[in-house]
Amino acid sequence: MFDASVYTARRDALRSKVKGGVILLPGHVDSPINNAANCYRFRQDSNFAYYFGIYKPGMVGVIDEGGRSIIYGDDVSLDDIVWTGPVPTVREQAEEVGVKTTRPLRDLPADLQVAIRKGQRMHIAPPYRAETVLQLSEWLGLMPTHVRNYASEELIAAIISMREVKSAGEIEELDRIAEVGYEMQTAAMRMAQPGEQENTIFGVLEGIAATGGNLTSFGSIISQHGETLHNDKHFDILREGRLLLVDCGVEAYSNYVTDNTRTIPVGGTFTPQQLDMYNLVLQAQEYGIAHSKSGVRYLDVHLGVCGVIVEGLRAMGLVRGDVKEAVEIGVQGLFFPHGLGHMMGLDCHDMESLGETLVGYSRDVARSKQFGLSALRCAKELKEGFVVTVEPGIYFIPELIDQWKAQGVMKGFINYDEVEKYRNFGGIRLEDDIVITAGGCRIIGKKRIPIAPADVTAEVQKGRFAGKK
Amino acid sequence: MFDASVYTARRDALRSKVKGGVILLPGHVDSPINNAANCYRFRQDSNFAYYFGIYKPGMVGVIDEGGRSIIYGDDVSLDDIVWTGPVPTVREQAEEVGVKTTRPLRDLPADLQVAIRKGQRMHIAPPYRAETVLQLSEWLGLMPTHVRNYASEELIAAIISMREVKSAGEIEELDRIAEVGYEMQTAAMRMAQPGEQENTIFGVLEGIAATGGNLTSFGSIISQHGETLHNDKHFDILREGRLLLVDCGVEAYSNYVTDNTRTIPVGGTFTPQQLDMYNLVLQAQEYGIAHSKSGVRYLDVHLGVCGVIVEGLRAMGLVRGDVKEAVEIGVQGLFFPHGLGHMMGLDCHDMESLGETLVGYSRDVARSKQFGLSALRCAKELKEGFVVTVEPGIYFIPELIDQWKAQGVMKGFINYDEVEKYRNFGGIRLEDDIVITAGGCRIIGKKRIPIAPADVTAEVQKGRFAGKK
Ligand SMILES: [Mn+2]
Ligand SMILES: [Mn+2]
Repeated sequence: MFDASVYTARRDALRSKVKGGVILLPGHVDSPINNAANCYRFRQDSNFAYYFGIYKPGMVGVIDEGGRSIIYGDDVSLDDIVWTGPVPTVREQAEEVGVKTTRPLRDLPADLQVAIRKGQRMHIAPPYRAETVLQLSEWLGLMPTHVRNYASEELIAAIISMREVKSAGEIEELDRIAEVGYEMQTAAMRMAQPGEQENTIFGVLEGIAATGGNLTSFGSIISQHGETLHNDKHFDILREGRLLLVDCGVEAYSNYVTDNTRTIPVGGTFTPQQLDMYNLVLQAQEYGIAHSKSGVRYLDVHLGVCGVIVEGLRAMGLVRGDVKEAVEIGVQGLFFPHGLGHMMGLDCHDMESLGETLVGYSRDVARSKQFGLSALRCAKELKEGFVVTVEPGIYFIPELIDQWKAQGVMKGFINYDEVEKYRNFGGIRLEDDIVITAGGCRIIGKKRIPIAPADVTAEVQKGRFAGKK
Repeated sequence: MFDASVYTARRDALRSKVKGGVILLPGHVDSPINNAANCYRFRQDSNFAYYFGIYKPGMVGVIDEGGRSIIYGDDVSLDDIVWTGPVPTVREQAEEVGVKTTRPLRDLPADLQVAIRKGQRMHIAPPYRAETVLQLSEWLGLMPTHVRNYASEELIAAIISMREVKSAGEIEELDRIAEVGYEMQTAAMRMAQPGEQENTIFGVLEGIAATGGNLTSFGSIISQHGETLHNDKHFDILREGRLLLVDCGVEAYSNYVTDNTRTIPVGGTFTPQQLDMYNLVLQAQEYGIAHSKSGVRYLDVHLGVCGVIVEGLRAMGLVRGDVKEAVEIGVQGLFFPHGLGHMMGLDCHDMESLGETLVGYSRDVARSKQFGLSALRCAKELKEGFVVTVEPGIYFIPELIDQWKAQGVMKGFINYDEVEKYRNFGGIRLEDDIVITAGGCRIIGKKRIPIAPADVTAEVQKGRFAGKK
């Protein structure tokens, strides 16, 4: 992906941040679907990709106490070439990322044991794939159940401090892959016609992601039930008058991703009720973008957005009372039960495997237990080079409304009779990805995915008049 | 997928085949991509799907010594419903497949330990996912490295004896999903135009598979280098005069799959050399279909097909000498270094996780060590209800030709000077899926994917005249 010097500099910086011991970063092996030889699309571990830049299965990266980088891996045999075609050697791949020492994988356990006997600490990140747990268990002589506890806080903190600030090269790659994300969202708009199947749109977006990248960055949400936040079902037929929530992204071969949400009126016409609510979410989202800049805590941007939402809902008669007080006690949780956004980069929820709270919070910003606010993934002070999503939403979740209403939750602030009128509304979410710049922030990608109601409607109309579904 | 009575009958039959002990069939959990919460598309274990018929993660099926079926699994909590929407309970799902007893997952280890203390054997299939290894290690108190050795030969044999014979209902599902396989292959033909990218075709096929099913059944091979048998690269631009090999399939939500290969002249015109070779592969494939019937060993069909290929290559001047003798010593290995086919059903390589040789061979048919023949996945006697692929091919693999030529392998039979003229030919493979019937066999699916040269060419031409890539 990048020049060898980039990876060398990253490894040197990591080595200088982690005092002593061996830094052990296993790359991914293939993940079997239904037998050992039939695997899911390969996807490299993001830490390995960041420091060792090789996108092939079965590699392990080590930075030893002396600062030397070593890649452990095995070459393909001549017999395998009939099946795989010619493949560069481990040595050739290592050279591309500035690593001069390579060894066969079978040497790794013994090499690590030598270091352990010298009293050197093994620094590992928390493993999240069972294959990695099994490898680390074997290599380090730990019980599988103990491997997670063995993760190094020092290594985790060092990686976060580096990966959270994106370089110009990384932002360029994010801008590049954003074009595929744009194509996915606008294709969904053109297909949002009555009679179309959610599943057909799902498939087309998979196809666009596979053409322009390696994978979707997560299971696409394509649903007329946007109120179910992580709805993985997409078997319904589109109906005029419903809103279709599309939350999807592509993952490049480099692992850099996109993550965008649009909410589309099926057939291209908003009802007045939908349009009012849409404009409120849009106002909240643009408030979020306008207030995201270096030195501001994302928690405060989130709370500001909550204020916009509560204010708007009050104007519509769904909420009453003092807005500031309402936001403080968490009235918005009924309508907006998730956070404003998360960091993004080599992962959609960037670095989440290192620990969501370690990534998104800091010594100065503690995680709240309040319903809704507790789901905020990124709360800490923004810095230049941070990439975050801005994704407020308003939802009417029947199960949640019933629960709160029955318990009389915040009934002084919530006009449940009025809320009932929206019971079958569904949900709206709008999400862009931004990078914090010297002056404030900007949206990733050359052009913003249509978001103004008229622009979304126009895109849907294009599909309608294309004369084919 | 099927009525409860089907699953109950399958479990009863399995119980009667496996004498004593506990049959333990863990369903799949989700497979993480880049953190525990972001997972690949869920795909159930095929044995669990066959006997317990539930397609949700986190379930475990047990048939106890008394023949009682139990499903272990946990219900979704009310807090989760905000994210997932309403989900049927474990009890409701169990009832759908005729299982009356359900328990929380945390009860499983203790229940198994009770049975173990009573001296009951635990019958497990060989685990192929690391998650399953970790689960079994914990539940059975075994070292992870020991779990695979613990697999039950008796259970494996019983499962194979049942799953290898497909019921009318299974064949109906295979016929249904074949329509999506047809759509994938013909879409590839229409897109096989000069200037098109392999990757764009790859993406479109992913999209069709995701629309009509749950997944592709394996990583699609879309390559102008068909001579690399499992070529997972698809980054080239299509060029007039090349052959594009497309080997792909869809996997239904039921896990039933398709697996078809076609080889397409880019732009729609075969060169005379290509056409001759294509017709030879087609003749071999149709020989294979014509000779597949109950009571015949698939090994013998494979060897018959090899005879057709060697005979044809002799007519072209690439091979010389006695055909029978040539086939016996394995001359065809240079051109056709793989087997005629494999069983297919709930897996593309059906039941391969139970052991390829256990599935495809029998006491009477041993596995050969001869290059090429050793790769034959299914060799045993065919029975009514078997579903197998018929997929001969002819390839010119430069690395293999160089190796054999340098070593003078079978130089009495192989005219290496003539072979050199095909060095940049690429490869041709043609694959259909058949079911063995009372009278012989038939191709799965309502209509056969175009295969006659004129029909393939016509399909390519349709794309050319569609006026868009
Ligand atoms: Mn997001
Ligand atoms: Mn096949």
